[in-house]
Parts: sequence; C-alpha cells; structure tokens
Amino acid sequence: MSFKDTKVVIVGAGKVGSTTAFSIINQGLCGDVCLIDVNHEHAVGEALDMRDSVFFMNRNVNVHAGDYSECADADIVIITAAAPMPKDSNDRLEMLKPSLGVVRSVVEQVMASGFDGIFLVVSNPVDVMSYYTWKVSGLPHERVIGSGTFLDSARLCRALSDMYDLASNSVEAYVLGEHGDSEIVSWNSATIGGKRVDDVLRDNASRTRGVTRDELRKRTVQAGWDIFSRKGNTCYGIASSTASIAKSILFDENRIMPVSVYLDGQYGIRDTFISVPTIVDSTGAKEIVEIDLLPDELEALKKSANMLHGLDEKL
Amino acid sequence: MSFKDTKVVIVGAGKVGSTTAFSIINQGLCGDVCLIDVNHEHAVGEALDMRDSVFFMNRNVNVHAGDYSECADADIVIITAAAPMPKDSNDRLEMLKPSLGVVRSVVEQVMASGFDGIFLVVSNPVDVMSYYTWKVSGLPHERVIGSGTFLDSARLCRALSDMYDLASNSVEAYVLGEHGDSEIVSWNSATIGGKRVDDVLRDNASRTRGVTRDELRKRTVQAGWDIFSRKGNTCYGIASSTASIAKSILFDENRIMPVSVYLDGQYGIRDTFISVPTIVDSTGAKEIVEIDLLPDELEALKKSANMLHGLDEKL
Amino acid sequence: MSFKDTKVVIVGAGKVGSTTAFSIINQGLCGDVCLIDVNHEHAVGEALDMRDSVFFMNRNVNVHAGDYSECADADIVIITAAAPMPKDSNDRLEMLKPSLGVVRSVVEQVMASGFDGIFLVVSNPVDVMSYYTWKVSGLPHERVIGSGTFLDSARLCRALSDMYDLASNSVEAYVLGEHGDSEIVSWNSATIGGKRVDDVLRDNASRTRGVTRDELRKRTVQAGWDIFSRKGNTCYGIASSTASIAKSILFDENRIMPVSVYLDGQYGIRDTFISVPTIVDSTGAKEIVEIDLLPDELEALKKSANMLHGLDEKL
Amino acid sequence: MSFKDTKVVIVGAGKVGSTTAFSIINQGLCGDVCLIDVNHEHAVGEALDMRDSVFFMNRNVNVHAGDYSECADADIVIITAAAPMPKDSNDRLEMLKPSLGVVRSVVEQVMASGFDGIFLVVSNPVDVMSYYTWKVSGLPHERVIGSGTFLDSARLCRALSDMYDLASNSVEAYVLGEHGDSEIVSWNSATIGGKRVDDVLRDNASRTRGVTRDELRKRTVQAGWDIFSRKGNTCYGIASSTASIAKSILFDENRIMPVSVYLDGQYGIRDTFISVPTIVDSTGAKEIVEIDLLPDELEALKKSANMLHGLDEKL
Repeated sequence: MSFKDTKVVIVGAGKVGSTTAFSIINQGLCGDVCLIDVNHEHAVGEALDMRDSVFFMNRNVNVHAGDYSECADADIVIITAAAPMPKDSNDRLEMLKPSLGVVRSVVEQVMASGFDGIFLVVSNPVDVMSYYTWKVSGLPHERVIGSGTFLDSARLCRALSDMYDLASNSVEAYVLGEHGDSEIVSWNSATIGGKRVDDVLRDNASRTRGVTRDELRKRTVQAGWDIFSRKGNTCYGIASSTASIAKSILFDENRIMPVSVYLDGQYGIRDTFISVPTIVDSTGAKEIVEIDLLPDELEALKKSANMLHGLDEKL
Repeated sequence: MSFKDTKVVIVGAGKVGSTTAFSIINQGLCGDVCLIDVNHEHAVGEALDMRDSVFFMNRNVNVHAGDYSECADADIVIITAAAPMPKDSNDRLEMLKPSLGVVRSVVEQVMASGFDGIFLVVSNPVDVMSYYTWKVSGLPHERVIGSGTFLDSARLCRALSDMYDLASNSVEAYVLGEHGDSEIVSWNSATIGGKRVDDVLRDNASRTRGVTRDELRKRTVQAGWDIFSRKGNTCYGIASSTASIAKSILFDENRIMPVSVYLDGQYGIRDTFISVPTIVDSTGAKEIVEIDLLPDELEALKKSANMLHGLDEKL
Repeated sequence: MSFKDTKVVIVGAGKVGSTTAFSIINQGLCGDVCLIDVNHEHAVGEALDMRDSVFFMNRNVNVHAGDYSECADADIVIITAAAPMPKDSNDRLEMLKPSLGVVRSVVEQVMASGFDGIFLVVSNPVDVMSYYTWKVSGLPHERVIGSGTFLDSARLCRALSDMYDLASNSVEAYVLGEHGDSEIVSWNSATIGGKRVDDVLRDNASRTRGVTRDELRKRTVQAGWDIFSRKGNTCYGIASSTASIAKSILFDENRIMPVSVYLDGQYGIRDTFISVPTIVDSTGAKEIVEIDLLPDELEALKKSANMLHGLDEKL
Repeated sequence: MSFKDTKVVIVGAGKVGSTTAFSIINQGLCGDVCLIDVNHEHAVGEALDMRDSVFFMNRNVNVHAGDYSECADADIVIITAAAPMPKDSNDRLEMLKPSLGVVRSVVEQVMASGFDGIFLVVSNPVDVMSYYTWKVSGLPHERVIGSGTFLDSARLCRALSDMYDLASNSVEAYVLGEHGDSEIVSWNSATIGGKRVDDVLRDNASRTRGVTRDELRKRTVQAGWDIFSRKGNTCYGIASSTASIAKSILFDENRIMPVSVYLDGQYGIRDTFISVPTIVDSTGAKEIVEIDLLPDELEALKKSANMLHGLDEKL
C-alpha cells in the first residue's frame, strides 16, 4: 500500500464540500478524493473542474465523483450534507428532523459499503450530528470527530494576533463547548508566546484600548455571521479547518485540536459529543486533554453538555 | 522592502476572482491580497471568510477588501470582472460592449491610482480583453498578460497523461491561438518524456485504441463545457492556472507558459493579443518563444489572429 | 523590487553555514543565497553542489559564492564563522579572542559594503558574539539577533512531545538565558495543548514514570553533546532553527521565538544579549515579550545576564 | 495503514546518505526514515541531529538509526555505502571488488530481513552496482533503480536554462547511458518550451556566442568534478536527485526520469542496467520509454551497454 491509496470521500458537493476538496487537493493530503452528491452530475462537474487544477500543483491527487461503494476503502468520510431547516417550528428537535434524515441516510449508505475509517462531521448543528453519526454507524466513538469549535478557536487566535500584530500560530487559545452562541473561551489556558492572555491584556491595556474578554468572545461568535450576512454562506474558513483535521488524521500528526468528540466522563460529562482539546491521530480522537477550566467556564461547558445530552437522547 | 509588501489586487470577487484569491493564499504567493468588487460588502464577506483560513496555512497572507487606491503599490492586478452578454445580438462587437465597458472602467480606475505593475486578464473573451486592457492602460505591452490557453494546455497534457497513466508534468503540450473553439494544438512540439506525441501515439496505438489528434483536440476544447453544463460555472481550473501565472511573475520564475500576449511580428502576426509560448518573469511577458509550427497550424494561428486583429481595431 | 531580490548572505561555508544555505534553498525562503568563506574555492564548491539541487525543488533560488560586496543589498547576513578555541588558557575572555577577531573582521567587512539589513549570529558563544556584532556594527540593537536558545527550546518541546506521543508543535516551552549549560527552562509558561506542563506531568505521572523537571532540563542541555560526541559536529538542528528565524524575518511572520536579543531593562536586565521570547519580523527583534518567570528562574536568568554583561563590557 | 507507516531505510550515513535523509525530512516524503551504518554510533548521531530539525518543519517525520531488521517493512532501501577503490590496480573489476563486497553484504542483510520493497542504488559505479544489487537480491528487475544520469540531466537542463535565463523546469533534456565520462546527451529529444534545443541554439546563436552541443555536454560531464575538486565530495545535488526519485515512488507520481534500469531488449540492449527515460511509480521502474535517439547516440549507448554487460557478466 502506498500514498496513492489514501482516500477521502466527501459527502455533499456544495460550497463547503467542494471547497474542502479543493483545499485537500491544494495541500496534496491524500492520493484520492471522491465527491458524492445527491445531484451526481453536479459532483461530476465539480470533480472535473478540480481535475483541471491538479496540473498546476506540486502533488498529484486523483479527484472524481462517485457513489457510496467508494467508501469501502476510504480513510475518512467527511459529511457536509444537510437539509434546510423548516421555518414553521420553534421546537429544536422538530427543526433538526430533515437534516437528521439526511445524515442517517448518508451514514447508513456509508456503513453498507463496508467502511472502516473515520467520520469527520461538518454538517450543523455539528455536535448533534456527530453524536447521531456515531449512533447510526455503530463505530467506536473515537472514530467520529466533529469539526466543532476548531474554526471558532482559529478566529479567536486571529482576533488576538491581529490586536498585537503577531503570527496567529504564536497564539494558543481554545473555544470549547457547543459550536454556536453558547461556546466558551478557556481563558485560563489561552497564551501568547507562553504568557497568559489575561496578563498580556493587563500589560498592554493602553495598546488595546481596554478590550475585554467579553468583547473578544463576542467578536469570535459574531465572525461567522459577519461573513454569512455579506456573502450568503461561509466556505473557506470551515473548509480549511476541516482539511487541517483531515491532515492530522492522514499524516498521523497527533496534533491537539478543539474538536467535537465523545466524552465519557471527562470534564464530568458523559455520552455527549462536544468540543474539547483532543489529540487527533490516524486512529481518530486518540485522547482527550483535560485542561483546567475556570469554575464558570466548567459550569458553562456542563450546561451546554446537558442541553446537548438531552437532545441526543431523543434522537 | 520585504515579502509582506508584495501585493496582488483582484478585481471581481465572483467565483473566479475569489477562488483565485484562495489559491494564492493557499500557496502563500504574496504578502497581501486585496479584493475589489462593485458589491463591496460581498468582497468584504469573501475576504473575512478567507482570513479565517489563514490560521490553518503554512504562510501568513493578509487578505482584505478595498478600493482602487489599493492598486497604487500592487505588483499584479488580476481582472476577472465582466458583464453578461446581451442575448439579442448576433454581432460579436455588439455583444462585447457591456464587458468592454466594465473592463474600461476597471482599467481606468486602476491606472488613476498610479498603478505601475502587471495586468493579468482573465475576463473573457480573454484575447480581446487583454488587448483592450493594454490600449486603455497605456502600459508597455509586456506588462499585460491574458490567462489565454494555459488552462487549455493543462487539459491537453492531462488528457495525454491520463491515457498513459503518467504524471501530467512529464507531458509538454501547447494549445495556442485564440482561447475558444478555434484554438490550435501544436503537435510538432508536443512531447512525452522528450518523445514526440505523434511517435508515442504510433508506438502505443493498441493501448489507446487508435485515438487521434483530432479527438484529443476535441476533448480539450470540450472540457470547459463539460464542467459548465454540470455546475453552471468553472472556477477551480481557471483559478489555479491564473495563480500559476501570478507565481511566475511574483517569484520571477521565468517559466515558459502559453499565455495571451502582444505579438509584434512573431509568427508573422502584429498588433494582436493571442496565446503563444512566453517566458514570464517579474517584468511580465519577457520574451516570446517562436516554436516551429506545422504549416496548417501556423495557418490556423494566423487566421485566428486576423480575426482578433479585426476586432481589436474596432475597440 | 520582487522576491528574486531578497537575499541572504552566509558567512562561513562550513558544516553549519552550508547546511543552513541548503535548508533555505529547500524551503525557497529567498531569491538569492550567497556564501562567503575565507576559503573561497570551498564556498564555490558548496554553491555549485547546491545549484545542482535546485532543479529538483519547487522554487528557484539562486546560490553562489561571493565576497563582502554582496552584503550591500542583503536582507540578512548570517554569521557562522568562528575560530578554534586555544586550549592553553582557562581565562574565558582569552579563549574567545580568536573567534572575536574573526567576528570583528567579518562585521567590519560586512558594514563596509553598505549593509543595511539584519545580522543573524550563529557563531558561539552566541550571546557574546551577538553583543560584539552589535557593538562593532553600530546598527540599532533590534537589527542583531542571535540564534540563542531556539534550538534548545525545540529540543525541550521534542522531549515533551515524544513523552506523550504528540506533535511537537502542540507543545510550547521555552529554554531561556545563556545558550549553554546555564540555560533556564520557563516552566510556568510551558504548556501542552494549553495545559501547564506541571499539571500534565502530575496527571500523567504513571505514564512517564515520574520524570521530573530536572531530568527534562538535563536531557535538553545534554542533547547537543549527544550528537557532537557521536558525529563530531552538529549541523541539521542548528541549520533548521536558523532558517526558521530567517523565515520569520523574510516573510515578516511576527512569530514569537526565544532568541538572543539586546535587553534594555526587560526582566531587569540591561545592555546584554541573552535569549528571551521575542517577536521577530522584517525589522528584526520587533518586541520583547516579558513572560512571568518563577522567582528562581528569574534569579537564574539575571545571574546569567550579569556574567554575560561582565564579559560584554570587556570586549 | 497510513502515511506514518511509509518507511525509507538509508544504508550508509556518510555525506550522501545523511544529506539524502535530510532532504527527505525537509520535504516530508515519508513517515519514517532509518539510517544504517557500519559505524552505528555515527548513524545515531546523524539521526539525533536530524530529529532536532523536525520541530522546525511542516511535516513530522520520524528519524532514527537502526539495523537491517528495519528493512522488513521498508518501502525503499537506498544504498549509498561503498568502499574506497584500491589504487594499485588498473583492472576495473579488480578495483570494484571492495565496493562489490560492501554492496553484496548490504543486499544480503536487507533481503534476510524479509524486505519486499524497492532498492534505490546510489553507490558508484551506479550502473554496475544496480545490476549487482538486482542479482544478489533476486528481486524482479523493476524493483531495482539506480540514480544513474538523473543528476547529470539536471545539470544539462540547468546549463541550458542558465544560458537563456529560464526556469530549469521549462527545459527538458536527457543525459543517458553509463553514469560517467561516456554518458550521452539525447539532442533529438532535448526541448526548451517545446522547441528543439538545436533550433533554439540556431535561432539564438548571437546570444550564446555560438556555444556548441559538445561544449554543453562537456560542461555537464565536468560539473561533478568542478565540485569534487573544490570541496572533496558532492552531496547536495545527488541527495536531491535521489530524494526526487524516492518521491516518485512514494507518491506514485509516474514521472518520467532518466534512471539506471534493467533493459530487456529496449534500445537493442539486454541484461544490463543503464540510464534511459523510465516511468517511475510505486512499483518501481514501471515502464521504459523508448525515445528516438540519433544514430550516433544510439551507437554510443549500445557501446556503453556492451562494456557494462561485459563487466556485469563477470560479477
């Protein structure tokens, strides 16, 4: 077996799915990328368009459209498919039903192929969909990872690095919890060059005109909406974060990333998918890192988890 | 001055423009990318979305939306903007008028900024728009390059490399002339591993079931339509080829590429932009390579050039 | 001006100098690399050998041997030259004299060319040689950077990441102070995935068989000797760390790195070059980051600085 | 199985072997690199030094020293080991005996491990040593590749590209035959931007002051000696070309490269290893490309092959 045999299947060839495929091809992360879409001809078009780009790249990746039988030997299946939310309901579970139906159908077809790899779930709400993917698939829980708050964390790092005109990879800061409005920043573990962000904010108050933790958290939560309201979708950020998770799996990088994973007692949380720092390697979510959250952060994390768990039980 | 000061401005933040920006960011080709669009808020949205992706990349590129004053210190301005063709006309010049108006307006505003770099024209019909950009800008002709038939050439290389299960960069083959249905393959100079493609076809006839030159040319011309008819646009291939030309300019690579350039007697053609092999470096179209075309190929090239020249004169 | 005009001059084409050049070429960090050596023919040989490698790389870098006039338009001059230490002395200053003579001669010739860039000093003892380079050059102090403890820090990160089977870039840990036996680990700021290393050691004591801070520091200090005693020199690690600092300068990355820089009151230290976390950009040592050291760490840092300052004054 | 399981073993941790390892690590070509050397401690030192460099790179490669049991699951074994030639003999076979002994010993130990991958032979004279490796190993001939004239071809491309100030990858030119003074340039297939080099020389005679084919061939043959005479060895060029061949194997690139392979009737040559253009993929030397040599070139190739065959038979 060689590199050419490494394969990523992407279900859903919309904006997010195809931009993710393009990112994977640009970075040459695997030998084979397959796009599956209910509109097969659309997937064929996207694949042909991407094939035209490979000539200009440093590494040859095969890209094509296919059906679920392609999952049999895939290392990763990325799920980006979803259904529109019904607008005539206030009941959250009711609103999720169409997307749950899509995800169930996808996962069942993937498993029927004999798939024995790792699910990387991007469809929203990502924590619920990751849980559901795990349930329907019957795979060990470490083999299902949701994109979770990795993108949110990148946004926070960026907000901090922009403020001090720094490389964003010299900032380490996690957004944890449910991907969405209730997400939590772990301030205690946020560092810039090894210095706690709290201390950086304090020592540089004049430079940053007294920006507060709360404002930084708001900017982070707001960032997605700032894009969506202007272009009607978001694709580049989420595609790049998804490709980055896929890279840690495919190259067995063992990087620590805040992604949505199954908790089995860590942080006092059970039987729920929610984002916490996780070591990601070729086996999936290899190990969960339990960082020291501040009491109110831990409280907020547990509250989110409870709400998600309540939802998960009804799926 | 350092790398961070290298700047690419992209006019038109539609599919092609923003995918080109994303390709440039993914490859870390310059320090600063600026998107300009008539719908400024849309450009802001695209830029914010791309900013979210930089955290996950190996090289930090600044990306933002701006106005034409940004062109003052740009190394390259890429024009992807165009207008829809009117459907109620059969006169080609008449049909081009809306796009010519857009390109004139773009070029005038770029030049008003004090721009002193290189135009890279992607808007179609690319040969006409390159000529018009040159005329309106008043820049030396080597400072205007059209994306031309570089993508078409990549498609031909790919068709050949797929046929023999080869790396596409072990194939060298040019599509020349007008980007469109009349484009020409230079068979005489097409080689696979240094062996003329004609000889390869002859020696491997059984493997390729007698595929002919004509069929290969048809597949190449057809490739864009195969994508367009399925997904309603093409973006990944054209963005990647455009990024590749920008790379040869920004890194002074001196690569030979088939791009649309001003001919001043080469191939017996004057005062026309049309695609021929060209050495591209930091000064733009540094030198045109005159390869030995077969008589019918040269004839076809001149015929295309005549037609374009007729059109150019009326602009 | 374009990328091709970015230039790095390396003085000293021995093991460290030429491996650094090769690393820069492999990564395509600038347009031009020039090697200067007292044995000019040797430098020519190294340059010719490296020129043969460029064909196989993704980015074209020009490499050649030259004289000090090449420094006039260099962005960075890397000093790797040194002289053997005399063995018949116990006086540290006496022992340094030959190397100080070499460095003085190099810096004077570099400055005579009209050099207006950044010195990156690798010659040992690096903190003293960086100070001396600054003094002799008369440049603003932010324009002189010593490779310092960046490599030592990488070794510590690696020791930690190996222990937990983690990506080394998910570990953040600084070795600070004088590059050598007295170097200090900043345990307070050392984190793994945002979790303090102390807490990680505590929570995973069984996995790591009770390894202590002291053992980790010893392994780090010992690492260079482990190599030297076996192969008679070290080149790959130091070359890679030097290329990484050069990259942060050339691409204006603003990364935070523990490098040897001039302190002007930070950490209570004055008029000494010593390694502390520093933001490195195209202007050199842009800003020093004052992290919270533990009392004994700060004490040790000051003690090292005092000793170095005493030496520096006598130069 | 994943990327981390891809493994390259390098036998001989001298200049060429360790520079090859460093190139592979810099480019992140596989998950695991193992160095084997008769001086095991030296190999340990080289590996430790390289481990220090991985922190600064984009991709994590494991590097260590080991013994022949490591070859059991290796994808590639690169042989760089050799013995000094005895100076008291004029008989070529006699002179090769020490190196033949080394290679036999290496290959037998590799095969005893259960090795089932591809041999990449760099030890000189490379054509003879490749043949001998094949004989001793008993592997199918497509599983043994010698580095051959790939480096010489790069030198020729570089000589041509320098002459016209061009990207060297816009030149395609092969040096074929025995790696050494009798090597042959295939002028018929040499092209620059698809134009035959002969025609380029003719059309640009004034620019190149009438440089001839012969002078270009001489420069190419001379290039290695120009380096050796100045630095006492060559390592960067040969290491980079070897890494490039390894890349085509590991990533199944199917690139066409002039490397030393077993001929079984192609070019009228049998039972000899000699350099000709070859498609290299994950199975090794997948297919030999028979290009149209000029009569005197083919004659010279056969003459070299005869001489080598005579030698091979006596091994």
